[in-house]
Amino acid sequence: MADDKALTPRAEDFSAWYNEVVQRAELADHSPVRGSMVIRPWGFGIWERMQRALDDMFKATGHENAYFPLLIPMSFIEREKEHVKGFKPELAVVTHAGGKELEEPLVIRPTSETIIYSMYAKWVQSYRDLPVLLNQWANVMRWELRTRLFLRTSEFLWQEGHTAHATDTEAQEETLRMLDVYRTFMEEWIAMPVVTGLKSDAEKFAGAVRTYTCEAMMQDRRALQAGTSHHLGQNFSRQFGLTFQSEEGREEYAWNTSWGVSTRLVGGMVMTHGDDTGIVVPPRLAPAQVVVVPIYRKEEEREGVVGKAHELRERLTDVGVRVRVDDRDHLNPGAKFYEWERKGVPFRLEIGPRDLAKEQVVLVKRVTAKGEDRKAFLPEAQAVAELPDRLDAFQGELLEAARARREAHSHRGVQSLDELKEILEGPGGFVYTGWSGDPEVEERVKAETKDTLRCIPDPDFRSETPPSRCIGGGESRMEVMWARAY
Amino acid sequence: MADDKALTPRAEDFSAWYNEVVQRAELADHSPVRGSMVIRPWGFGIWERMQRALDDMFKATGHENAYFPLLIPMSFIEREKEHVKGFKPELAVVTHAGGKELEEPLVIRPTSETIIYSMYAKWVQSYRDLPVLLNQWANVMRWELRTRLFLRTSEFLWQEGHTAHATDTEAQEETLRMLDVYRTFMEEWIAMPVVTGLKSDAEKFAGAVRTYTCEAMMQDRRALQAGTSHHLGQNFSRQFGLTFQSEEGREEYAWNTSWGVSTRLVGGMVMTHGDDTGIVVPPRLAPAQVVVVPIYRKEEEREGVVGKAHELRERLTDVGVRVRVDDRDHLNPGAKFYEWERKGVPFRLEIGPRDLAKEQVVLVKRVTAKGEDRKAFLPEAQAVAELPDRLDAFQGELLEAARARREAHSHRGVQSLDELKEILEGPGGFVYTGWSGDPEVEERVKAETKDTLRCIPDPDFRSETPPSRCIGGGESRMEVMWARAY
Repeated sequence: MADDKALTPRAEDFSAWYNEVVQRAELADHSPVRGSMVIRPWGFGIWERMQRALDDMFKATGHENAYFPLLIPMSFIEREKEHVKGFKPELAVVTHAGGKELEEPLVIRPTSETIIYSMYAKWVQSYRDLPVLLNQWANVMRWELRTRLFLRTSEFLWQEGHTAHATDTEAQEETLRMLDVYRTFMEEWIAMPVVTGLKSDAEKFAGAVRTYTCEAMMQDRRALQAGTSHHLGQNFSRQFGLTFQSEEGREEYAWNTSWGVSTRLVGGMVMTHGDDTGIVVPPRLAPAQVVVVPIYRKEEEREGVVGKAHELRERLTDVGVRVRVDDRDHLNPGAKFYEWERKGVPFRLEIGPRDLAKEQVVLVKRVTAKGEDRKAFLPEAQAVAELPDRLDAFQGELLEAARARREAHSHRGVQSLDELKEILEGPGGFVYTGWSGDPEVEERVKAETKDTLRCIPDPDFRSETPPSRCIGGGESRMEVMWARAY
Repeated sequence: MADDKALTPRAEDFSAWYNEVVQRAELADHSPVRGSMVIRPWGFGIWERMQRALDDMFKATGHENAYFPLLIPMSFIEREKEHVKGFKPELAVVTHAGGKELEEPLVIRPTSETIIYSMYAKWVQSYRDLPVLLNQWANVMRWELRTRLFLRTSEFLWQEGHTAHATDTEAQEETLRMLDVYRTFMEEWIAMPVVTGLKSDAEKFAGAVRTYTCEAMMQDRRALQAGTSHHLGQNFSRQFGLTFQSEEGREEYAWNTSWGVSTRLVGGMVMTHGDDTGIVVPPRLAPAQVVVVPIYRKEEEREGVVGKAHELRERLTDVGVRVRVDDRDHLNPGAKFYEWERKGVPFRLEIGPRDLAKEQVVLVKRVTAKGEDRKAFLPEAQAVAELPDRLDAFQGELLEAARARREAHSHRGVQSLDELKEILEGPGGFVYTGWSGDPEVEERVKAETKDTLRCIPDPDFRSETPPSRCIGGGESRMEVMWARAY
């Protein structure tokens, strides 16, 4: 499917650009079911690599995978009162099954705390059975009115970690450990820097005691909540009877945490690195890191360059590079270049008859810094030898560029609501201010600006000079970060 | 959770044994939602290894993964008339979502042909877009009245491959290619030999032109349908407008195939290899292939043997063996032996203070042939060096034992319905007979014996002398295999 129309430029309409690029890079498509998307092979290949990397990190921190039911009795969801308030409006409900009306309606899981902790209650008897450290890769459903591919769909794919601990302290450590796993993953794999911190009570997960978040800045300077880690206290263990006998022989309620990231991360990748040509996939996530395009005009040239292309694929595979050869005969090289640039492959190798004779290749980089050459003419052996390092370097450059952009649009020391408004309605970005902790101030800012308190940043992200005044007037008790959010 | 009660012996009540062993090996548990199970970490670890192996084989045969919606409009399911007849009685239906009644009910996918081919119709224009070779890992729902963990649950996990081709011939080749992938996987990974062949029209998939199957014999001599591969012809492409322009410029309907295996395979593994002590996990699927149990009585012995256990774990990990050290202090060695035998770990390494002094270990094999020693006293270095080969050998022995058992209970040359009944109501097994191809004969056998025509076996599995008489009388046109099935 050739599709040569240019994308709407980001500067003209970022939202239109996003919708177009996601479909035209063949990451995903709309389905006939309102609010549900189809993840196409290129998009799923990226998600698979995210899954693999996260899964390895979860296992390295002592977690195992398990699988719990898709359907949850309505009465379970209703048991934790903040939880039901948060999720009830978004539920999809199964009322009939096997040709009969069900006695009790079942909901498609919007998240699995209730069903999972009901099982832990069955499995855990003693402090010796703790901690329980499980993760589940699953689909979940939250009925949404306005949907956008990857960012907000009724059904999405995610992982949800659910743990049970003997003490509050251990649960808090776990909550922060997984927040740190997320931050590391987002930076090292998606090349997407994040600000981590604590959510205000108004913004925390329905049923949590504390929610920690990773907030990433997209190119339109809006915040994307990219992952959250919740300390659930004993809220769920009390409702589901998740108790254990302590070392001292007392019956106690366990302490729970839950943490999740979803296919939304693919949208975050797109909005962090994409340009007006297409998406850009960080090398560590790219299903193909290099595409080899043989170039020929005459049939007698074909065999030589196509043969060389496959030979290079093998040599690069041997040094650990993921390569595709695009040897389709019905497309000209220009159409292939355009397609793979749109799909964000980090490097392209071109080989024509003259290159063949000189044993050289043309290496083209998907994104370059100002003044950097896009094309390099390299001896074959050098290209093969250098590509692993060039891919690593490219991964690092993407992270640095995203970090520099975020810093350029971070506004610190903002004192007044007017100034906050001016920034967020103008250039946008992350705005750091003081806060008294008063929820009314938070509510007022949200009502007047449509912006939300994204988090109370962790020490790494706080301003050197702590703010003295609250954005709503009076004394500041903590620094907070505001942004318009997805 | 110590659980020392012996299992019901298989010979006494195979079905009770199965239900007990699945739960007590901590593979899975019943959930509060009728018909849905929870897959616990030990069971999920086995499933993960099955997934990884199959996924690699799918990719090696040119397939990519994608993801399609969980919910399907009721009208889609109703479009293919055999399909709806097969699946409608088992559907779970979402009638309300987001607090409102839906205009059209949505069903939770029982299988995804309809939604997937509706998308292919959008993506495919020309013969150049073919073949489309996609696979999806997903949960599906078929409302069942009588459920059994892994074997028959309302929700289960599976993969479903869906392909589109330009010609009938290519689709037929794909159908057989994937049948062969399944057979290879089941033999090489699950050590579960299968008979492959064609289903009769009465037993084929609802909507298929031809269904091929893998039939495995369980220890109670019943057949387990372990995987199927369907040639769908143009049945779905016609209903969903999946057309393409051929090389000659004609508009044509594509040819489809679909193929799937599910978490049922875990049940197949249990019923193929388990014994009265517990399950037996083939080494290639085992989350832990070796468990190291340090043995000590006095506190001063502890440090040495536990240290050695971890050292051995590292050395074995270096040679590619998956190892766990069971250094829990509150369980005695006997309880640990029992737990890991129940969970089917292929080998156990015991290390006590005397072994430490002699630099030797005690290696205990989970299943031995008649006359083979269970225990081997080996120098440490030798145990480490030999374990990879011993694991390979164990894998092979499991397959051979299962194959020998199947052959011992395969009855060929059976001529009369009385004889067939006698076998299947007595010792059981796979019974090969002639068949005229008349569906009335098939129906009569099923009604009188509760046994079903499992398949028309592929050449590899046919009797040396083809049967001349049909089991229902008259001339035979083909050899068929009958069994009582799960």
